[in-house]
Amino acid sequence: MEIRLLAPRRFPRVRPQDDLPGLVIRCLREADLTVGVGDVLVIAHKVVSIAEGRVVSLSDVTPSPRAEALARKVDKDPRLVELILRESQEVLRARPGLLIVRHRLGFVCANGGVDHSNAGPGRVVLLPMDPDRSAEQIRMRVREAFGADCAVIVADTHGRAHREGAVGICIGLSGMAPFLDHRGRRDLYGYELRSSVEAIADELASAATLLMGQSAEGRPLVLVQGAPIVPGEGSARALIRSKERDLFP
Amino acid sequence: MEIRLLAPRRFPRVRPQDDLPGLVIRCLREADLTVGVGDVLVIAHKVVSIAEGRVVSLSDVTPSPRAEALARKVDKDPRLVELILRESQEVLRARPGLLIVRHRLGFVCANGGVDHSNAGPGRVVLLPMDPDRSAEQIRMRVREAFGADCAVIVADTHGRAHREGAVGICIGLSGMAPFLDHRGRRDLYGYELRSSVEAIADELASAATLLMGQSAEGRPLVLVQGAPIVPGEGSARALIRSKERDLFP
Repeated sequence: MEIRLLAPRRFPRVRPQDDLPGLVIRCLREADLTVGVGDVLVIAHKVVSIAEGRVVSLSDVTPSPRAEALARKVDKDPRLVELILRESQEVLRARPGLLIVRHRLGFVCANGGVDHSNAGPGRVVLLPMDPDRSAEQIRMRVREAFGADCAVIVADTHGRAHREGAVGICIGLSGMAPFLDHRGRRDLYGYELRSSVEAIADELASAATLLMGQSAEGRPLVLVQGAPIVPGEGSARALIRSKERDLFP
Repeated sequence: MEIRLLAPRRFPRVRPQDDLPGLVIRCLREADLTVGVGDVLVIAHKVVSIAEGRVVSLSDVTPSPRAEALARKVDKDPRLVELILRESQEVLRARPGLLIVRHRLGFVCANGGVDHSNAGPGRVVLLPMDPDRSAEQIRMRVREAFGADCAVIVADTHGRAHREGAVGICIGLSGMAPFLDHRGRRDLYGYELRSSVEAIADELASAATLLMGQSAEGRPLVLVQGAPIVPGEGSARALIRSKERDLFP
């Protein structure tokens, strides 16, 4: 069995209001790549956010008194903290240099997904408004262009509890189930596997992130062929464990 | 750019005291795969554990009073709980059906990595004693056989805080740095990236786990070609965030 991950070398620099699905299709064609049924396109959230105009100049932001106070506590720019608060449901941890929140999309992350990199001087990029919908829009246009229904994952890079370093995770999804459910299958001895639900959408985002790089030579688009996905509608929201269900300390 | 993940279809059933590095080499040769410099071999911890004799019959285990008490609390077999306690530094969360511990190897996981699947009736498999060393032993023998120094990752599948489903992670490592450090690189606008340390050993384990399956048709060995690794000594222990450094709630 084989999985191939292919990242076209040149993706155009994306600007607000660009037609991102059109850029994706052109980029794939220029790289002589065809999308087939069962393939997965993984795209870095950064280009989705920029195309959707989720770029903010810090000079346009007026921090609230709450943001001012929190900014002093965490030693960050109050305008940045204002944006983080607007993007968050709740602040989970705040100390100098660190602000961990539950994002309005549900996941727990640092700085509400608000990021300086590749945004331009004095500007920051917010996460897409609805990354599942962004994924679906790309999927529909790719299906029109290539005549095949693939899956699309919008990926971000997140830190984790208990482990060092960040890994790619899925924040938006269309066209596949986020999990592969091994429950009910039998092992070598006929023992029924009980608790093996694999978050393959996150594993695919991690795999693709290996090719994306993080700097000026970034490759925001990765085509994955041969992954064991189950086509379907799916949503990245299913990957978020609610506070009530949280098992880990 | 391209990454290829190749899983040989047939890996022999592994038994205690088997020469696992020898089985790996034979399996690669029978699949006509050659290992080159910069390649990564990812191997499921389960076959490492079994070859190293880390299989225990529950009937041979006498639970301590502490294990008996904890077993009542979490509603698990006291002999299983005894093994979990022996494999753990501390119990972090215990409630019916759930036992989260800090493993003696340092990471936070459910059930101390003690697993029923593919162990045989009445038996369980513990994690390898020293997975870095297991990885190194495979690496040395593969280097002898193929004349090329690759990296080796021992992978396990772990649940996570805040997210549903399990993903492959690296618990043993030899021949590569576990991280790719993007700090100091510059973005499209010349902005210096500040906090981008990517845990590529975990991303590689996640990618390979996509091919491994979990049941009788398991493919415990995956060869990865084209990944952006930095050769070096490395250890999976570097991926563990200490309590003192933990950022997430």
